[in-house]
Amino acid sequence: MNQRRVERVLENMAGRGLPQMVVSDPADIFFLTGRWILPGERMLALCLNRNGNHKMLINRLFTVPEDLGVDKLWFSDSDDCIALLNGCIDHRSALGVDKNFPARFLLPLMDSGAASKYVLASDCVGRVRACKDSEERERMREASRINDRAMAEFVPLIRPGVTEIQAAESMERIYHSLGADGYSFDPLVAFGKNAAAGHHAPDHTPLREGDCVLFDVGCRKNGYCSDMTRTFFFRSVSERAKKIYEIVRKANEAAEAMIRPGVEFCEIDRTARGIIEDAGFGKEFTHRLGHSIGIEVHEAGDVSAANREEVRPGMTFSIEPGIYVEGEVGVRVEDLVLVTETGCEVLNHYTKELTILP
Amino acid sequence: MNQRRVERVLENMAGRGLPQMVVSDPADIFFLTGRWILPGERMLALCLNRNGNHKMLINRLFTVPEDLGVDKLWFSDSDDCIALLNGCIDHRSALGVDKNFPARFLLPLMDSGAASKYVLASDCVGRVRACKDSEERERMREASRINDRAMAEFVPLIRPGVTEIQAAESMERIYHSLGADGYSFDPLVAFGKNAAAGHHAPDHTPLREGDCVLFDVGCRKNGYCSDMTRTFFFRSVSERAKKIYEIVRKANEAAEAMIRPGVEFCEIDRTARGIIEDAGFGKEFTHRLGHSIGIEVHEAGDVSAANREEVRPGMTFSIEPGIYVEGEVGVRVEDLVLVTETGCEVLNHYTKELTILP
Repeated sequence: MNQRRVERVLENMAGRGLPQMVVSDPADIFFLTGRWILPGERMLALCLNRNGNHKMLINRLFTVPEDLGVDKLWFSDSDDCIALLNGCIDHRSALGVDKNFPARFLLPLMDSGAASKYVLASDCVGRVRACKDSEERERMREASRINDRAMAEFVPLIRPGVTEIQAAESMERIYHSLGADGYSFDPLVAFGKNAAAGHHAPDHTPLREGDCVLFDVGCRKNGYCSDMTRTFFFRSVSERAKKIYEIVRKANEAAEAMIRPGVEFCEIDRTARGIIEDAGFGKEFTHRLGHSIGIEVHEAGDVSAANREEVRPGMTFSIEPGIYVEGEVGVRVEDLVLVTETGCEVLNHYTKELTILP
Repeated sequence: MNQRRVERVLENMAGRGLPQMVVSDPADIFFLTGRWILPGERMLALCLNRNGNHKMLINRLFTVPEDLGVDKLWFSDSDDCIALLNGCIDHRSALGVDKNFPARFLLPLMDSGAASKYVLASDCVGRVRACKDSEERERMREASRINDRAMAEFVPLIRPGVTEIQAAESMERIYHSLGADGYSFDPLVAFGKNAAAGHHAPDHTPLREGDCVLFDVGCRKNGYCSDMTRTFFFRSVSERAKKIYEIVRKANEAAEAMIRPGVEFCEIDRTARGIIEDAGFGKEFTHRLGHSIGIEVHEAGDVSAANREEVRPGMTFSIEPGIYVEGEVGVRVEDLVLVTETGCEVLNHYTKELTILP
């Protein structure tokens, strides 16, 4: 276990008055132990206790190193893992519970009388994960460095008649060749009016002259995620699309320029949204400005009108304004940023100049 | 909604004495409504009530057709969806709860006093999903037809020096070209001793003469999954590996030959395991014989020593015996089967003859 990270989680538990909690989210467990274990339908639980008596409940089907730095309680499919978990919990005290802990474990655990009450407590880990330490910062930079290089190799996939799916299906090979471990999410490739549709998945739409070409792509490297969007145009661009592009780019750059510790997330959203509204496209910017990212593509916290939290050093999140004109064109420009002591480091360096592909 | 399927779920709820339940699993909701919605961190809930007053709680970010056949309660990120859900529930009665319903919804729902008690009830849907209706059977056949054709195109990916990752990364393109919607799970490609390691993910291991080549692959088509394993040998095969191959193949075929309604799952497992044990490799067959499959690759129910349930018409599951000799070789032969009124239909037709690739 990473003792410094565990200590910070225990401090947050103390602040919430919780003596004990169950961590079950694989991403939280990776953060604390360095091991990615996807238990599927099986239980995986890290019981943290402020008295230092931590336990990891793990099925024998999985493997972890002997020297993980935490006592392991192994069980098999035929064992009663609820009774095992119950045995790790002080029944007279409150228990912090992972926000994703499923009913199939939580209800029988409650029936077994494990604790005096049950309190959602994922933010005790989430607050620590939000501010990346130096090792994590370097991993975030590395994943985005690969993503920049990958974008340069994705651009030549764009040729007359290619379909969205055809362009997308070469991307995994390119990421691997650049040293990535895989996708951080399935790549989004959208041409023309498809780029204006929310949640569009690549389909058999062929590329046509004048189309916008939107790539929203990311890879995973050493457990950490990248995520970048660039929007190009194929062979020509209308005056209106050009204008839209420049508004979005301006919103992206203005938001990035104001990021520093102490600024509220909602102020950053407001700045980018204000630029798009002033240009008359407020209704066409249909989502929040960004999301936190790290071990997962979407982590706790976002850049939205509703988030009055202040930005802190080590936070990493996306800045991704967009304008979506239904049936016509969609433009989004997205970078990741890492908050520093005095401002922010933009982790993506692929050009944001309007680019017309030949 | 598919009224026949809903009726069968309500019958199961009656059998459990449950007047109401919350279905939240996206696969269950797809089964009942025909719509795949992945809500991420947001709530998606289908409240079924035996009085016929069903409600679907859904965030405005998602889209479903107007005529879905169920009342929709729309909400936004700023709305209190727990209060909305509470309003759909008879507080004096027990509530069936989805096994995957996460603590972040379940704990506040319980705090709101929604029901008199909370009972895990996913099997009310799971028992219906287990027996595929005629439309589902055709979709299962189609997904496996594509998988058979795909296997024939995967074999030529095997050439001297190719790595596991290189072979795997062409598979998505091949599936798409054959009309599949995508993977049902990330393909498993394992060479030589890697084939003996549980949960091995494709890596940069290059192929060498004499290696076994294990492909465990599946695609998704119209919402339904295929899953097949074949093990080949590259250029040569040792006498011992050949013997192991024939034992596994015999176990696979003997198990498939005995499947018909009324047989217990544990008997099928016993038959295959007995053949492998008699040949002296009992300890090297380290997992259950198979798993149920349909909308998800792993569905409720399995072919294992612990499952005394009887096989029923319409069930679809895998038969996948294997022998794993650590550090040396791994062999698995897997088909999907569909239980008929009198026996079973093997859904895979790719040859199981021992094949040495050139």
